[in-house]
Amino acid sequence: MQTRHVKIIGTGKYMPKRRVTDSEMDRALGVPEGWVRKKTNVIHRHFVEDETASFMGAKAAYAALEAAGLTFDDVDCLVCTSGTMEQPIPCTAALIQEAMGQQHSGVPAFDINSTCLSFVAGLDVMSYMVEAGRYRRVLLVSTEIASKGLNWKQKESAALFGDGAAAAVIAKSGPEERSRILSACMETYSAGAHLSEIRGGGSGRPAGAFAPETAEHYLFDMQGEPLFRMASKKLPDFMNRLLAGAECSIANIKLVIPHQGSAMAMRLLSRKLRISEEQLLYITPDHGNTISASIPMGLHEAIRQGRIERGDRVLLIGTSAGLTLGGVVLDY
Amino acid sequence: MQTRHVKIIGTGKYMPKRRVTDSEMDRALGVPEGWVRKKTNVIHRHFVEDETASFMGAKAAYAALEAAGLTFDDVDCLVCTSGTMEQPIPCTAALIQEAMGQQHSGVPAFDINSTCLSFVAGLDVMSYMVEAGRYRRVLLVSTEIASKGLNWKQKESAALFGDGAAAAVIAKSGPEERSRILSACMETYSAGAHLSEIRGGGSGRPAGAFAPETAEHYLFDMQGEPLFRMASKKLPDFMNRLLAGAECSIANIKLVIPHQGSAMAMRLLSRKLRISEEQLLYITPDHGNTISASIPMGLHEAIRQGRIERGDRVLLIGTSAGLTLGGVVLDY
Repeated sequence: MQTRHVKIIGTGKYMPKRRVTDSEMDRALGVPEGWVRKKTNVIHRHFVEDETASFMGAKAAYAALEAAGLTFDDVDCLVCTSGTMEQPIPCTAALIQEAMGQQHSGVPAFDINSTCLSFVAGLDVMSYMVEAGRYRRVLLVSTEIASKGLNWKQKESAALFGDGAAAAVIAKSGPEERSRILSACMETYSAGAHLSEIRGGGSGRPAGAFAPETAEHYLFDMQGEPLFRMASKKLPDFMNRLLAGAECSIANIKLVIPHQGSAMAMRLLSRKLRISEEQLLYITPDHGNTISASIPMGLHEAIRQGRIERGDRVLLIGTSAGLTLGGVVLDY
Repeated sequence: MQTRHVKIIGTGKYMPKRRVTDSEMDRALGVPEGWVRKKTNVIHRHFVEDETASFMGAKAAYAALEAAGLTFDDVDCLVCTSGTMEQPIPCTAALIQEAMGQQHSGVPAFDINSTCLSFVAGLDVMSYMVEAGRYRRVLLVSTEIASKGLNWKQKESAALFGDGAAAAVIAKSGPEERSRILSACMETYSAGAHLSEIRGGGSGRPAGAFAPETAEHYLFDMQGEPLFRMASKKLPDFMNRLLAGAECSIANIKLVIPHQGSAMAMRLLSRKLRISEEQLLYITPDHGNTISASIPMGLHEAIRQGRIERGDRVLLIGTSAGLTLGGVVLDY
């Protein structure tokens, strides 16, 4: 086991003010009334108006600190664990630090990016620094604006996403506490790297080369079916390795907090992995897929709704562009 | 001390085929012959022609593996530690895995971004996972294409940068070995976040909003003087904290490998921090500033040129957009 005596001591979230219903989306996409709900089961998602990623991240971060009974002065490190960035330079974590009004704090700020699994990767990686005592408390912030990169011609994918932010504070747990991280696993199969991508905006196809006729290169492009086939083929073995690392079975898990991908994907995932309905946290209908914020938002909702209590075994799991599979087994 | 028994077991680099002289840059920038050399001391830098960031990264990564006497099968984790990305989605590490022809390997691939200090941040963070035995060998890859984001109207900054990639493999060192990481320090002061930035291309100002009249927002914008003032004010105390963490003084350092910023910045840095000429690795004249690849490239050159041998104490140090100060003290 790779046990780390690290616990989640506070979570927070921020949803943009603008709430977009499925009927609005039906009209925006030019599809019959009811199509969006039937295809995605997303009844409403939030889209930003004037909010920036760093603003939302700061709001979620302060909410997480408040839940932990802490102030910013208690934080040693700020890691932005998002799949989208606010600016190409500097990293989004620095902009979150600024949006928090902590621009003179000196608290180290950097980004960890594994697209939709950025929070899972960040939690996994940073827990080793906390366990080793390098940082006492680390603030992980996932803040995503999907709405500005959607391709409205890919209706099913456009209907799926939402904006929002979620944050968590992690700290060392005492030897007498049950809270700990039991195992974590990440696997990347770049054979699927181009099944889910935004090609334009980086050095490969710079923003400066943008032209209306190639606009689609600068928008999210997902080949849903081949992606789903690849992910669902790899997930069962991956799950076995992850659970074996924690020396437990799915029956020992109180709550599974999956990345909120498509409803179809989640249904099939649950069946394949033998996750019961009671074990599954499902917040898609009122959030949509909020990229990397999806899993910490699920965690936040699970705590807030009383679905998990201290000591309960929780599984965070998902897939991300890459194609990456990732998960963490922890005792909350 | 935060000693980690982690060593650098191989390094590699890749420079793009196209080598651009200072005279060519003088002409391109419309300045008198000799201006670029006088202002930047960059005699030649390399710019990509058809090379992509992932291609360069793969080349540097294989060179590092060869230097370590390893193959890709020996690697447990691939981290891209770059300040620029190839595509907004997926992370560049996945694209490097693909460019290495290892798309079915399952080796976890994600990005750590602290702009110019991404390698330093990645080395620091990932060394804890190696020390804990989570990953045996981690491949860190910095691959940068600065040339596609330069603002040719900001002549001094445009004259400074170059493209290129560098990689390093890290592994656990035995208790009998002198190789180890002694201390590391990172501090972010986002009061300087907008002194060095690319505003456009992320969710804040999406690539899709690009228009010729706002093109400068999508290019690198550096306010050299205030940035330099802020960095040089903070560096001496930062350096003291970093060296104190390693319980040593600058006199104990065999070689300082700084981020290759501007020549003026490096001269002043050396004087302020009492670094002698023999202690300083200076590769700016034939590389320029290659963003995050600058420090691992310096490390590679130091090893290749015999400037450091096993057991020698090395200081990696620099500043990055954020504003972040970062450094690592290690016994090579």
